Amino acid sequence: MIHVGLLLFPGVQQLDIIGPHDVLTGLPEVQTHMVWKTLDPVAASTGLRMFPDTTYASCPPLDVLIVPGGGGVNALLTDAETLVWLRATSRRLTHLCSVCTGSLILAAAGLLRGRRATSHWRFRELVAEGGGIPVAERIVTDRGQEGTYTVMSGGGVTAGIDFALALAAELVGQDEAMRKQLYLEYAPAPPFEAGDPETAPAHILQQSLEATAPNVAARRESVRAGVAMTAKLEAEGK
Amino acid sequence: MIHVGLLLFPGVQQLDIIGPHDVLTGLPEVQTHMVWKTLDPVAASTGLRMFPDTTYASCPPLDVLIVPGGGGVNALLTDAETLVWLRATSRRLTHLCSVCTGSLILAAAGLLRGRRATSHWRFRELVAEGGGIPVAERIVTDRGQEGTYTVMSGGGVTAGIDFALALAAELVGQDEAMRKQLYLEYAPAPPFEAGDPETAPAHILQQSLEATAPNVAARRESVRAGVAMTAKLEAEGK
Repeated sequence: MIHVGLLLFPGVQQLDIIGPHDVLTGLPEVQTHMVWKTLDPVAASTGLRMFPDTTYASCPPLDVLIVPGGGGVNALLTDAETLVWLRATSRRLTHLCSVCTGSLILAAAGLLRGRRATSHWRFRELVAEGGGIPVAERIVTDRGQEGTYTVMSGGGVTAGIDFALALAAELVGQDEAMRKQLYLEYAPAPPFEAGDPETAPAHILQQSLEATAPNVAARRESVRAGVAMTAKLEAEGK
Repeated sequence: MIHVGLLLFPGVQQLDIIGPHDVLTGLPEVQTHMVWKTLDPVAASTGLRMFPDTTYASCPPLDVLIVPGGGGVNALLTDAETLVWLRATSRRLTHLCSVCTGSLILAAAGLLRGRRATSHWRFRELVAEGGGIPVAERIVTDRGQEGTYTVMSGGGVTAGIDFALALAAELVGQDEAMRKQLYLEYAPAPPFEAGDPETAPAHILQQSLEATAPNVAARRESVRAGVAMTAKLEAEGK
């Protein structure tokens, strides 16, 4: 059995986590786990409350960990309990994964040093604050050196579905992944084109850049604070 | 304020409901509601438990209703309480919507008679059991006659995202919808092509057709039973 954990935290962008969860749950030999500190319900960015099914303390040993993103990322970047758990969990993983701004948590935890990763288009560059190499692609796979985990990351929010299909193909083969794709009818056809900075109309992009500038600045500070906290944890042998 | 209800029922395919919920929540002048019979948590097809935030009895008057699909559809097709609530709710809607096999519930409730609608590719033809006109498109909009609701439907599971962007454009304009599309980075790029019967490799399609044949037959019976129940409810003036 391949144990896949998904980090379910307050303020998660719900589609970041639900996309991969629906793609991966039910695949043969795959067991998914929604992991958080406690079993109490967690509110996503939309307000939707969902139940974790295991905790940092009770989670079975994971083969794959997926960290989604969302507004709640900021608080996690300097959450010592989470950083320590991520670092300990990473040691036996075959795949360390993120969707959207989840990669910033991995970067803050020191787990992307020298590794290629993507993120939400607006926050992608911040991967570098933790020593990672930001890559402007929708799905990025970095196999790293022998004896370490593969880093697989997806871009913003809906990229979690594309990412999870690529991960499914790695875990259980492309035929199983394609069966799931057909089941989920994933033959996307957006009614208009504004899904990334390259295709969005100029005024839509400009509005988004302006509206999110304060968020990017604040999050850069949070990532730096997380990187500093991780350095301290490492010095303490954690 | 535009009140948008999403039906959250046991056995819902979680991505059917979470995709539209994440697209629509936070749009200006839009308030979303997760509706079910009670406020107790509801388990999706994956086992994930989520909380409704209102009930059939306490839901504010809705302008838009979205009914998702999933394995739990079968039980709802002959659930008199749900059929009666849907029929009553439909009377003041501007948009009656479905994702995936949610359209079969609308068909069973007698709300798609003479209307064009889509569904999951494998179950689409069953829309006709309730007098609807099945259409093999990813998003289908049927405006109907003056004085009735527009029917908007999305195909299987992930089509809910495409559908919800089209609905968002109707409700708050295409610029707002494009801003959300950019925020959600919805520039999809599946790692392989098997998302519909037209693109899936022949052996993947064949396996799927065989594996789901019993489900299609059982669901056809359930839709017919629902249509019969609705006829009885109508005869009773409900």
